[in-house]
Amino acid sequence: MNIRPVIRTVGFLIVFIAVSMLLSVAVGLIYGEGDAGGIALAAAVTAAIGLAAIYLNRGWKDLGSREGFAVVTFGWLMMSLCGSLPYLFTGAIPSVTDAFFESTSGFTTTGASILTEIEPLPHGVLFWRSFTHWIGGMGIIVFSIAILPFLGVGGMQMFKAESPGPTADKLTPRIRGTAEILWVVYVLFTAAEIVLLIAGGMSWFDAACHAFGTMATGGFSTKTASIGHYDSAYFEWVITFFMFAAGVSFSLHYFALRGKLKRYWQSAEFRFFLAAIVAAIAIVTIYRLADGIPFPDALRETAFQVVSIGTTTGYATADFETWHVFTQILLVALMLMGGMAGSTGGGIKAIRVLVLLQQARIELHKLIHPQTVYVIRVGRKVLQQSTVQNVLAFFLLYALLFGLGSLAMAMLGMDHITSMIGTIACLSNIGPGLGEVGPADNYAFIPTAGKWILAFLMIAGRLEIFTVLVLLTKTYWERV
Amino acid sequence: MNIRPVIRTVGFLIVFIAVSMLLSVAVGLIYGEGDAGGIALAAAVTAAIGLAAIYLNRGWKDLGSREGFAVVTFGWLMMSLCGSLPYLFTGAIPSVTDAFFESTSGFTTTGASILTEIEPLPHGVLFWRSFTHWIGGMGIIVFSIAILPFLGVGGMQMFKAESPGPTADKLTPRIRGTAEILWVVYVLFTAAEIVLLIAGGMSWFDAACHAFGTMATGGFSTKTASIGHYDSAYFEWVITFFMFAAGVSFSLHYFALRGKLKRYWQSAEFRFFLAAIVAAIAIVTIYRLADGIPFPDALRETAFQVVSIGTTTGYATADFETWHVFTQILLVALMLMGGMAGSTGGGIKAIRVLVLLQQARIELHKLIHPQTVYVIRVGRKVLQQSTVQNVLAFFLLYALLFGLGSLAMAMLGMDHITSMIGTIACLSNIGPGLGEVGPADNYAFIPTAGKWILAFLMIAGRLEIFTVLVLLTKTYWERV
Repeated sequence: MNIRPVIRTVGFLIVFIAVSMLLSVAVGLIYGEGDAGGIALAAAVTAAIGLAAIYLNRGWKDLGSREGFAVVTFGWLMMSLCGSLPYLFTGAIPSVTDAFFESTSGFTTTGASILTEIEPLPHGVLFWRSFTHWIGGMGIIVFSIAILPFLGVGGMQMFKAESPGPTADKLTPRIRGTAEILWVVYVLFTAAEIVLLIAGGMSWFDAACHAFGTMATGGFSTKTASIGHYDSAYFEWVITFFMFAAGVSFSLHYFALRGKLKRYWQSAEFRFFLAAIVAAIAIVTIYRLADGIPFPDALRETAFQVVSIGTTTGYATADFETWHVFTQILLVALMLMGGMAGSTGGGIKAIRVLVLLQQARIELHKLIHPQTVYVIRVGRKVLQQSTVQNVLAFFLLYALLFGLGSLAMAMLGMDHITSMIGTIACLSNIGPGLGEVGPADNYAFIPTAGKWILAFLMIAGRLEIFTVLVLLTKTYWERV
Repeated sequence: MNIRPVIRTVGFLIVFIAVSMLLSVAVGLIYGEGDAGGIALAAAVTAAIGLAAIYLNRGWKDLGSREGFAVVTFGWLMMSLCGSLPYLFTGAIPSVTDAFFESTSGFTTTGASILTEIEPLPHGVLFWRSFTHWIGGMGIIVFSIAILPFLGVGGMQMFKAESPGPTADKLTPRIRGTAEILWVVYVLFTAAEIVLLIAGGMSWFDAACHAFGTMATGGFSTKTASIGHYDSAYFEWVITFFMFAAGVSFSLHYFALRGKLKRYWQSAEFRFFLAAIVAAIAIVTIYRLADGIPFPDALRETAFQVVSIGTTTGYATADFETWHVFTQILLVALMLMGGMAGSTGGGIKAIRVLVLLQQARIELHKLIHPQTVYVIRVGRKVLQQSTVQNVLAFFLLYALLFGLGSLAMAMLGMDHITSMIGTIACLSNIGPGLGEVGPADNYAFIPTAGKWILAFLMIAGRLEIFTVLVLLTKTYWERV
């Protein structure tokens, strides 16, 4: 591992973050609520850090695949640290811990918030808060489609063949090519959602912020009551549609936009993800009907909530903690699965769940025919044994982090449900969980140590665990 | 699969169960509480079923390894069904569901009870209840040491080399040889515990019943307040010692009795299991001290409870639901791990957890050195790749059953904790869990469907999942 080209590359990322803060400065100036100065100062400090990192490591351009892990992990960490400056310098969130938590929650597209009231915040800060989602989502698309398969993380090699864009041996050109193509898709979807929300009567500001939160499967809203604030069937269906789209691989969207709509249905992962979401909506709707909710309301409310949780967005229109316990545990199962690989959604990912279920079936058959060689297919593609092993290992590490996270939260005094489901809600990048961090609650009350642990889980979950944990091994830091 | 030799073999097992009921008839006669007749009738009916099964399938002696799965699963199922007859025929437990639940809980050494008051039951029935534990434990030792490695279930091939007794290609002689050796150990331990409990002033009846429950890591007590009833430090330490012994591989005990005491320490699994138990006792004791409990009491109470849960026994002296949430989640982690392979303890097993942790570490290193070939060692032995894969698959199926079980229990109206931890408590064959099935509660209130589901989970967990689930595949039933 050579740290200098890593610092240099992260430097570029930070400069990009500084530049992106300028948009929030502009919003602050438009609304004139006195937050523009603080955000501008944050942008200046961030730019200075980034430029220093680049200048002090000039010439260190050679970035190998091994350095990729450090770039991604430190990249997200530094984005989150610098991203907390606008909260601190404007005084919107005076605590360093809280500001870092909120910023990390933004860039990891989690959407867990320490704010108890959203509306009192100035518009520049609110815009920044939602914009961190959007940048994070942009980063994740590139990470999951271009970088992950290259690094061989958690079975995501299986994604390699499907991924569009130029394939190269060097990391940088590959990322650049893929990024350009996919960001066009991401921008188009976001623009379409903004237009549709404005058409329904939402202000341009709220429309933009909610579109950022949707397409990144983030979940930060500009309203304390989230989407429930509007009490509008139109907004709910529009956002439901785009949340679902954000949970689908952007690689498929790219083909669709080029006219190859069939690609959706050809994807085994898409069919599985769609089936899971539709089945969950059907089951939960039946429970809601049994609670006496009329059909159109039950369907709308359920579809919104299932898609919001199933894609790990976390927008809320209803407090699902008042629903039947069975439907709550079903939502937790969806939290664990999360979106498709190559989407902005978090969690274990639909394709991994698909592989795990097939593997379970194969292991049973192996007992009967131990000599037979079994293969796992995703669509028409046969997976290598090592890929399957990676997926199993991912599941294992996921379970380990869940266990350790739950223990840590319990140690800090959380109750059972808050400890366990709060850990899942952060590890899977959802935001709202159950217990004291339910859809009607927030993360403000969590003790300082707990906020740092949850922020770590958000980053680990967002970067598919391996990417972060590998930095904790001694081997990684050996000189080559 | 050929079902006829399976039915014949299970027939022998049932006849054995019928004969073992006679001991309870004798106890019933001694106490003269009117239950001897009912138990005798149960023995007669059981014997008739067993003899019919043997007679109708006479000549079908050829039992292949494939039939082994059916013998074990149907064997435990039929033991549980016939074992419920004494409860029904004496009127001690009038409901078929409840009697089957209690009987399954006995034979699977789980110890979950539907009884709200234990003391009013006649002695013959109480003796039968504890004796089902002891028979189940006897069965499990043979199953896990002789049959599992032979069937290649869930990575238990790794146990093959360590297992004593004659190795043969045919299932039957191998089982017989191993069984005889290990049962001697089992009987010796049980006898030693009975003697020590009587020496402390316990009645011979209670001493025998509690020893049965201890050595099988069962947990049924003859007292509603379990071991807490006695409020005796002596009894608690004696039972703690034997519970721990029951959670250790009987194969190691066998060597120890032959003078090879070093074998304990040579076993990587033993060191790991011991370390986990000691660490948990240390941590929980600190929490209890912080609650103001004086040291000797805190240590005794904690050691008892940690060993009881960590070996999946389930005896109680304290309501750990009143302890700190962190210590409760720690106990749940111990529930998941369970005892050593080859012990009477349930759960995932210490050796599998050891393999899983090593595998997680290897996967991280593989990212850095993808070309290196890594091996997992248990002690000095290198595991085959297919064995590791089996262990991963076991973990996967365990997680799946946990998820489905929790969903099912929630559907039936249990709360979150009761659904999830109740499922773990049955799947890992412990008994007491958290929530409404905590150490101070029982399973009486669970709806009928829930009791059948939990009984299924007990059997699946007890037989290492694969053995049961393989019977649900179509391939298994194909003619060969």
